[in-house]
Amino acid sequence: MKDSQSPDGALQHVLDRLAEEEPKALERLFGLLAIPSVSTDPAYHQSCLDAAECCAALLRESGFEARVVPTSGKPMVVGHWRRVPSSDSSRRVLFYGHYDVQPPDPLEQWDAPPFDAHLTEDAQHGKMIVARGASDDKGQMMTFIEAARAWIGAHGSLPLDVSVLIEGEEESGSPSLGPFLAAHGDELKADLALVCDTGQWDADTPAITAFLRGLAFSEITISGPSRDLHSGVYGGPALNPLRVLADILAALHDNKGRVAVPGFYDGIQPPAPATLASWRALGFDETGFLGAVGLSEPAGEKDFPLLEQLWARPTAEINGIVGGYGGPGTKTVIPAQATAKLSFRLVPGQDPGKILSGVRRFVTDHLPSDAKVSFGHEGGSPAVGFDTGAPAFVAAARALEAEWGKAPVIAGCGASIPIVESFRSRLGMDSLLIGFALDDDRIHSPNEKYNLRSFTKGARSWARILAELGSIGDAARA
Amino acid sequence: MKDSQSPDGALQHVLDRLAEEEPKALERLFGLLAIPSVSTDPAYHQSCLDAAECCAALLRESGFEARVVPTSGKPMVVGHWRRVPSSDSSRRVLFYGHYDVQPPDPLEQWDAPPFDAHLTEDAQHGKMIVARGASDDKGQMMTFIEAARAWIGAHGSLPLDVSVLIEGEEESGSPSLGPFLAAHGDELKADLALVCDTGQWDADTPAITAFLRGLAFSEITISGPSRDLHSGVYGGPALNPLRVLADILAALHDNKGRVAVPGFYDGIQPPAPATLASWRALGFDETGFLGAVGLSEPAGEKDFPLLEQLWARPTAEINGIVGGYGGPGTKTVIPAQATAKLSFRLVPGQDPGKILSGVRRFVTDHLPSDAKVSFGHEGGSPAVGFDTGAPAFVAAARALEAEWGKAPVIAGCGASIPIVESFRSRLGMDSLLIGFALDDDRIHSPNEKYNLRSFTKGARSWARILAELGSIGDAARA
Repeated sequence: MKDSQSPDGALQHVLDRLAEEEPKALERLFGLLAIPSVSTDPAYHQSCLDAAECCAALLRESGFEARVVPTSGKPMVVGHWRRVPSSDSSRRVLFYGHYDVQPPDPLEQWDAPPFDAHLTEDAQHGKMIVARGASDDKGQMMTFIEAARAWIGAHGSLPLDVSVLIEGEEESGSPSLGPFLAAHGDELKADLALVCDTGQWDADTPAITAFLRGLAFSEITISGPSRDLHSGVYGGPALNPLRVLADILAALHDNKGRVAVPGFYDGIQPPAPATLASWRALGFDETGFLGAVGLSEPAGEKDFPLLEQLWARPTAEINGIVGGYGGPGTKTVIPAQATAKLSFRLVPGQDPGKILSGVRRFVTDHLPSDAKVSFGHEGGSPAVGFDTGAPAFVAAARALEAEWGKAPVIAGCGASIPIVESFRSRLGMDSLLIGFALDDDRIHSPNEKYNLRSFTKGARSWARILAELGSIGDAARA
Repeated sequence: MKDSQSPDGALQHVLDRLAEEEPKALERLFGLLAIPSVSTDPAYHQSCLDAAECCAALLRESGFEARVVPTSGKPMVVGHWRRVPSSDSSRRVLFYGHYDVQPPDPLEQWDAPPFDAHLTEDAQHGKMIVARGASDDKGQMMTFIEAARAWIGAHGSLPLDVSVLIEGEEESGSPSLGPFLAAHGDELKADLALVCDTGQWDADTPAITAFLRGLAFSEITISGPSRDLHSGVYGGPALNPLRVLADILAALHDNKGRVAVPGFYDGIQPPAPATLASWRALGFDETGFLGAVGLSEPAGEKDFPLLEQLWARPTAEINGIVGGYGGPGTKTVIPAQATAKLSFRLVPGQDPGKILSGVRRFVTDHLPSDAKVSFGHEGGSPAVGFDTGAPAFVAAARALEAEWGKAPVIAGCGASIPIVESFRSRLGMDSLLIGFALDDDRIHSPNEKYNLRSFTKGARSWARILAELGSIGDAARA
């Protein structure tokens, strides 16, 4: 039996405590799940306040200082646990979660009331926690809080300083988050953020999400004639802005699926060769991924496998076109204007501003005489790529491997995750994105579930990660 | 002085009579213009009935049998003048006009009440008849009726049998015309239709419109994924129907502005070389035509001058595109579908059905795997090109040259004129399109006018045309 004074022994005590506590941990989670904290519907406003108080109480019971901080929207929950005596050189992490949930509609498709959390079981998944929020994000969030509680319960302390931020507007666009981070940056800024709102690679394989694509968007409006024209009276000699637009949009890609805007790929920092090799070794089910949405062939850059197209390659997409007559039947009009909404998924090394100016130049260069262009509604944010060789990253990966018996997939995400971008741009803080959700958790849908195994092993994973992150801190202090 | 028994002498009597009668002819026209026969507005329904009765009375006064025939919409006016004894071999023409007018709005932009017809005068135009309908079409129509009245008044007869059809729904899409022609075809079918609803080449140059482009239209819908996708989660690997659509639409034309659909130009019958040469000699003001709508360069087929692009070359136009997000701001969606409305202006020799099947094949051939296409709302009608060497055509041109001192421009029209297509398809009857409107007549706009010179010389032109058409008949009977 391991000595509780050794790192491994200390951890084993925590894992044991998690096992002992699990029935009570489930009770605590079920209590939180019983609160219908739907942030998008004002009818549930009081429930959101109740959920915030519940989270603060759970943190306090676990050993944190915690308070509920009002915002102009739903309140934030902020908690801290600090070593005594504290020191400025103490390593600190900020854990992020959210207590709000998606609306439960359509209610009639639930097998049981959505806020009446309970366990069910089947052969494929084993025991499952079923309720709105079971996975997204109350269940995931509680894996961390239970891990922290077990550490404090077993040892009276955490392996490093931990702060917690739980918001209540993640499902409604987080309008209060930016102002809150601006006002409380000093209190919240840590060495690293831990975010538990993502998924595993599959039921047996953990994942750390290390690459998030960025976004640039623009709206281009082509103008031709000074007014809408009759295609009989003017058709032929008159420039048609819809045709100009189609020509430009068709020229956006070459025949290998590459974006043809000059300089578009300049400066791209691809993932490490080992990471790319690990993706190719994953045996990703391309057919299943595309088949689920009625497609059969990857449509992106021909030289890149699907997973790489999605996680590590930039794109140009036409998100909408408006021009001319769109009603029923026929109208033989040559419209004065035509507009396309474009967006570009970006990867590390691409600057949204440079991409947009390249696009403006590309469009302008393709304009025939007599056509004019205006650009509207531009914006974006850069991609995020974490250093997968950083000590905290390596430590977390080691912890996950110890728990799951296999190395985590170092995954990408095709979309940005706003909280990660906010932490980086407002607090200069990287995030470690680790979650235990599965693709079949039915988040945002009826009968949302979280496998009991996800909950159990998720808490154990965080217990291990805290230990590993603590030893980096110890090493730094040594 | 010419003998009234000679053709020229007989015509001179008619022209003299038109001159004597002109004050009364203007009174008659002003009386008709005073009736606010707006067909699109139910509030004016009684005025439409009154205008129909007025037209029938004017025809009867002129020497025609005439009656007002109810339809499910506005009534038709039908009149006949036949030689006695009549014979089956008698040549007969059917004159077409319309008694309905556009709404007068915006009323406040009229210098005088729109149905208070009166003469004004300026240095550029001389005397002008000002009222809603002065040009379109009451003034134009009355040039013919006055010419016929003068013939009958001077000689007790017309040079050939003449029927008249005056409808009251031209400004509202002529919904009753098709059924009426079907029901009264035998009564109305003549050797030739005379239509007075077009314009001159310029104030001093008459025109006969001999080429009308046809139309084919279609709606193509490209489908890709089985539902709208998030461009972060799927962007790159997922096929975007808007991009497929843009690629196909861009491929519709080659870099010389020609339509790239295989077979599109097969079988085209161009106007006679002499006609094309006469167009090039017209010195058409391309800069003015395009400048009026904010353009400066003809955008059609590079090898053809503007007027030929407009009158004698087919086109492919994108009339509308609908797909993805069109609201304010950004939505990073990859839509499941995208639709374009296309139309094709056709010239003689092109079959709308063949054009549309060529387009379907073209689109299908350009589809990437995983994209599907459906075609909706297809239809069309062929172009009309009259034989400019036919005796009636040559005769009318001779008559116009005699009146105006210069040969008429044998003009094209970029758009179809539905009545011409109806006469051809339902009654197998060609039309002679001769009108005296000018580009600055402000039809459909406030202060609509018809130059007194248009009215005077228009009536004289018809008097001459009737004489010329009658001599063809005489020759045929001889």
